[in-house]
Amino acid sequence: MPARNSTYHGRRVMITGGLGFIGSNLARALVDLGADVLLVDSLIPDYGGNLFNVEGFESRLRINVADVRQSSTMNYLVRDREIIFNLAGQVSHIDSMRDPDTDLEINCRAQLTLLEACRRHNPAAKVIYAGTRQVYGKPVSLPVDERHLVRPTDINGINKAAGEYYHLVYDSVFGVRACSLRLTNVYGPRQLVKHNRQGFIGWFIRLAVEGREIQIYGDGSQLRDFVYVDDVVDAFLLAGTSDAVNGEVFNVGGSEPTSLRDLVQMLIQCAGSGSVTFVEWPAEKKAIDIGSFYSDSTKFRSTTDWAPRVDLREGLRRTVEYYRAHLPHYLEDAS
Amino acid sequence: MPARNSTYHGRRVMITGGLGFIGSNLARALVDLGADVLLVDSLIPDYGGNLFNVEGFESRLRINVADVRQSSTMNYLVRDREIIFNLAGQVSHIDSMRDPDTDLEINCRAQLTLLEACRRHNPAAKVIYAGTRQVYGKPVSLPVDERHLVRPTDINGINKAAGEYYHLVYDSVFGVRACSLRLTNVYGPRQLVKHNRQGFIGWFIRLAVEGREIQIYGDGSQLRDFVYVDDVVDAFLLAGTSDAVNGEVFNVGGSEPTSLRDLVQMLIQCAGSGSVTFVEWPAEKKAIDIGSFYSDSTKFRSTTDWAPRVDLREGLRRTVEYYRAHLPHYLEDAS
Repeated sequence: MPARNSTYHGRRVMITGGLGFIGSNLARALVDLGADVLLVDSLIPDYGGNLFNVEGFESRLRINVADVRQSSTMNYLVRDREIIFNLAGQVSHIDSMRDPDTDLEINCRAQLTLLEACRRHNPAAKVIYAGTRQVYGKPVSLPVDERHLVRPTDINGINKAAGEYYHLVYDSVFGVRACSLRLTNVYGPRQLVKHNRQGFIGWFIRLAVEGREIQIYGDGSQLRDFVYVDDVVDAFLLAGTSDAVNGEVFNVGGSEPTSLRDLVQMLIQCAGSGSVTFVEWPAEKKAIDIGSFYSDSTKFRSTTDWAPRVDLREGLRRTVEYYRAHLPHYLEDAS
Repeated sequence: MPARNSTYHGRRVMITGGLGFIGSNLARALVDLGADVLLVDSLIPDYGGNLFNVEGFESRLRINVADVRQSSTMNYLVRDREIIFNLAGQVSHIDSMRDPDTDLEINCRAQLTLLEACRRHNPAAKVIYAGTRQVYGKPVSLPVDERHLVRPTDINGINKAAGEYYHLVYDSVFGVRACSLRLTNVYGPRQLVKHNRQGFIGWFIRLAVEGREIQIYGDGSQLRDFVYVDDVVDAFLLAGTSDAVNGEVFNVGGSEPTSLRDLVQMLIQCAGSGSVTFVEWPAEKKAIDIGSFYSDSTKFRSTTDWAPRVDLREGLRRTVEYYRAHLPHYLEDAS
């Protein structure tokens, strides 16, 4: 663990969505660094929050079950927090197209609620927002850097873009230091694998672990950059202690583009189980597909000294190992 | 009036925000073209809806007072409408920073409500959205065309960007034909002049007509492109009957950049009254100011055959004449 992270010792941090995939991995790292960690999570079924994600850490952190949309609660909770990792969100693209209003509530309104809480009750807070590559939509050129147009192809991408812009405006106008990390395809332990509406990679890993058939839409030639969750945790830790990131957006992605076909082949090798088949695109998913995508994280690398360290094969190996040991905890309801 | 507009004869159109500034000017034009016109307006005080705006036209169109956020109402109203001009919005930048939640409700939620109504109950509708140059934020280069990054500097700009993106996604995914016209600084008869929170130009015109002092923040060298409301009405009429615009965004701006200093000088000349003084920027406004801005409308001009026809001097003359005759109707409450 780099020396820089000693700066977290005794720091009062908050993680919204703290029982979710990235939030819980970040929480565990922060606890180990000696931070005073408050997790806020609504535990909405199917969203990814899972108490098992902090198993063994319960006595070393504080969990407050609450909905980030609830302003009086947030006004109270933010008061003494120095650094807020803002990861709460509705992350299913398909759900956002079926029920756009709920996506709006969580990805727009809740962000405003949190930022207003900081503006009114803790303007000295620093906020790191979990953005998404989805805001770019279908890329016009590759790799995609931060100068690429924002042109989301689905409601979730739009609302995540608005949530991100709010952070930038609260930074520039109200002095609440804030930035956004636009994450690409993150994978690893503690990801929701109960259903396939939060992206394909967790779902594929579950299928491989269970020895089932993985369906790839189309020919699997579309490229993505995958980033292991520990590298993303490291990115949040670095952003949380840097003031050079304030008011800025950064891509945080994997080292090299990989086709879905190659990903699945590697996954099946790592797992020693599972199989693959290629099927036609379902119309509902094809309509919001973006083709190949991979990002350029140079801006974040040069602003901090971040670099991804876990390559895809090693990351998949660790992830498969995790779910082999713990899969039943990820097939139950969040409670 | 161009021959193309004969296509509106007998067409069932709806205008949200139909009692507002641009909406009412558009309504009057459509009535004269023989369209079956339904106006939807919430008449929220201070937002710009004003029954006087359709004076003399009341018997030739239908007014339905309703809030676009109210989904059952919108589900009903959209059913038989062929073309929907979607102009309802909260347009004050300053208000959006004081009360971001209301701005979110109107500029995000209401847009989703309208689009969901179309998706579920009238997917054949065509929707023309009133976008804004505000989505670009502080320009990195001038003139600004549609390839410029979207980077709003205030909450209103963010929510207007989200509202616009929703339209594009409903076009590409759900087949509700939709486009957005990103309007620059529009001025002319029927604009709200009761307070100064909806932009400076209406306010300046009122002050000139009343023979009062106009305050310019800074030295007045910042540039804008001003477009007369009749030219904007013409842009909406053209977009409403073109399928080449579907799924696209277009700048709709004035012919040439003009400094605020020159604008005010010309206005005082046209009015024969009023005076000017230069003052320090108020902090609240400086924080969301964007410096000089002017747009490039080449994309819209080449997609339709639109061009602005009313130059600034003539537009100001007509506007001053209108408010000289009718100012008291714009100083009362909306009802």
